[in-house]
Amino acid sequence: MKTTKISSKLLNLIKQSSSFLIVGHINPEGDSIGSSLALALGLKKLGKKDICVLSKDPVPENLKFLPWARTIKRRRPAREFDVVVLVDCNSMERTGFETFRARKTAIIDHHVLPAETAKSPFYTSLSAGIIDPGAAAAGLLVFKVLKALKVELDKTIATNLYAAILIDTGGFRYSNSSPESLKTACHLVEAGASPWNISKEIFENIPFRGLKLLGLTLATLERKDGIAWITTTEDMFRETGTTSEDCEEFVDFPRKVKGAEVAIFFRQAGENVYKLSLRSKGKVNVRKIAKSFGGGGHDAAAGCKVTGSLKEVQNKVLKVARKALKETK
Amino acid sequence: MKTTKISSKLLNLIKQSSSFLIVGHINPEGDSIGSSLALALGLKKLGKKDICVLSKDPVPENLKFLPWARTIKRRRPAREFDVVVLVDCNSMERTGFETFRARKTAIIDHHVLPAETAKSPFYTSLSAGIIDPGAAAAGLLVFKVLKALKVELDKTIATNLYAAILIDTGGFRYSNSSPESLKTACHLVEAGASPWNISKEIFENIPFRGLKLLGLTLATLERKDGIAWITTTEDMFRETGTTSEDCEEFVDFPRKVKGAEVAIFFRQAGENVYKLSLRSKGKVNVRKIAKSFGGGGHDAAAGCKVTGSLKEVQNKVLKVARKALKETK
Repeated sequence: MKTTKISSKLLNLIKQSSSFLIVGHINPEGDSIGSSLALALGLKKLGKKDICVLSKDPVPENLKFLPWARTIKRRRPAREFDVVVLVDCNSMERTGFETFRARKTAIIDHHVLPAETAKSPFYTSLSAGIIDPGAAAAGLLVFKVLKALKVELDKTIATNLYAAILIDTGGFRYSNSSPESLKTACHLVEAGASPWNISKEIFENIPFRGLKLLGLTLATLERKDGIAWITTTEDMFRETGTTSEDCEEFVDFPRKVKGAEVAIFFRQAGENVYKLSLRSKGKVNVRKIAKSFGGGGHDAAAGCKVTGSLKEVQNKVLKVARKALKETK
Repeated sequence: MKTTKISSKLLNLIKQSSSFLIVGHINPEGDSIGSSLALALGLKKLGKKDICVLSKDPVPENLKFLPWARTIKRRRPAREFDVVVLVDCNSMERTGFETFRARKTAIIDHHVLPAETAKSPFYTSLSAGIIDPGAAAAGLLVFKVLKALKVELDKTIATNLYAAILIDTGGFRYSNSSPESLKTACHLVEAGASPWNISKEIFENIPFRGLKLLGLTLATLERKDGIAWITTTEDMFRETGTTSEDCEEFVDFPRKVKGAEVAIFFRQAGENVYKLSLRSKGKVNVRKIAKSFGGGGHDAAAGCKVTGSLKEVQNKVLKVARKALKETK
């Protein structure tokens, strides 16, 4: 089983500090929110008094049930902190803030560190951190940090960490569902996390209007040459009274198409503007496809924004996707 | 952690026998198929030479990837076996066969034993068995049996058992996702099961036509008083070139509706005949609702067949469901 070595520098920094600003990334999902809250709750258990969890964007509707989610602040407190800890992200840009008032900066993340970031003054001035792209979720790293700090897990911490791992492993489905992620999930359930309650809140609490939107969107399903795609238009949002928040997971559906290696979700985001989510079943690197349109992400899950009419956008993107698919053969 | 005591009678029976007929249930799913195959492969590793896995109904399309699934027979061999082992079911009726040529009968199952079955000659003449309704999947019981028999797991066994547990815990989402199921999954991944490959085959391999059918079906989504329901008609099957096999998981969608405590899927199965799948989020016992129409199942997942026009059927069933829901308040 792969294990991550937790840096003693990070542990010492935590032990020696007393005020913490914990920040996740923009457009936060379960790993960002759950890991941040779990870290905050763990530090509280260690007797740290001044802890603030910060998120530029609001907590998504289906994550508001997470213990202590209501305490998350959207504005930077005016006071200075001993340490700011970036969780589930590794650059200032991803936090959505320009600066933080903190004497030291630390990172707990599992994303690949871009070469530019590694050379940036922000990164070279880091006090401590753990960046492990091999970890399925930042939640697994926070779990290890808390364990190394001898924090006894309770239900609030376990629930937040379970949600973090659940989201980032696609419900223990993706290839990152390591023995470690399952073993950690097992510990978390023993510590009080309830798989059904958490899954119910995250996956089984879709507004009626969202499923209506899904029905309309699935009617657009097309496939060709190992690529499957769907489209949500602004008309559909209007007809169902929905917003982009209602179609966060829609790209999962073209991905489910048998024989589809690449799945694309085209979401209209203005006149002649489309936001794309791309998924790969393993053969194609969709981060490269997204990058060629100025986007980014992971090898198997990426996104970008493309302008033009729907037809133009689809033609452009499908062409690049077809080429990428051909190169794998 | 809850553990099941494996009966020494069962272990001795296995040790002392050399030919085995292993039978799952009609309309088999991942737990029935995966557990049966894993048991067969495990017994083979113990040096047992004559093993036959039998299934009345064919292996579903999305389970054909399971190691050794192709060896499953649909017809009873003429020869006599030392033991017939019923897996994931506990009555002859559920196997779809009337008799087996076997000197002894054993059961490995996790379904509640109906009072009638417990009194039946079939049951009282059982040679050995393990029936544990507390187990999330029959696969967990087979895992324990193989462990007790000191069978070393390999990738083929681990893959079959992982699929079994994955299916019956709803991908580790349902309330039966015990620490035990997660810990066992962890062992299985360490023994060679690949979460992504298995999940991909089971959940991400939906025929294009099936997703088209889902789109049409979601357009029928309705909800009232904590009940959400959808309908697939024979017209929709014709329009998309699909069959009932394409809508096996459709009931998951009304279940996802926020605020829905009961989800119902009405599937037309002839003129004025509807097959229903019912799901509960925990408050309502849908087995009781199904039972009042001559059906059955589990407390949270049940089914029945109701005759009448769609409107008549829906009115009848929704009335009973509303009453059941009211009684929980």
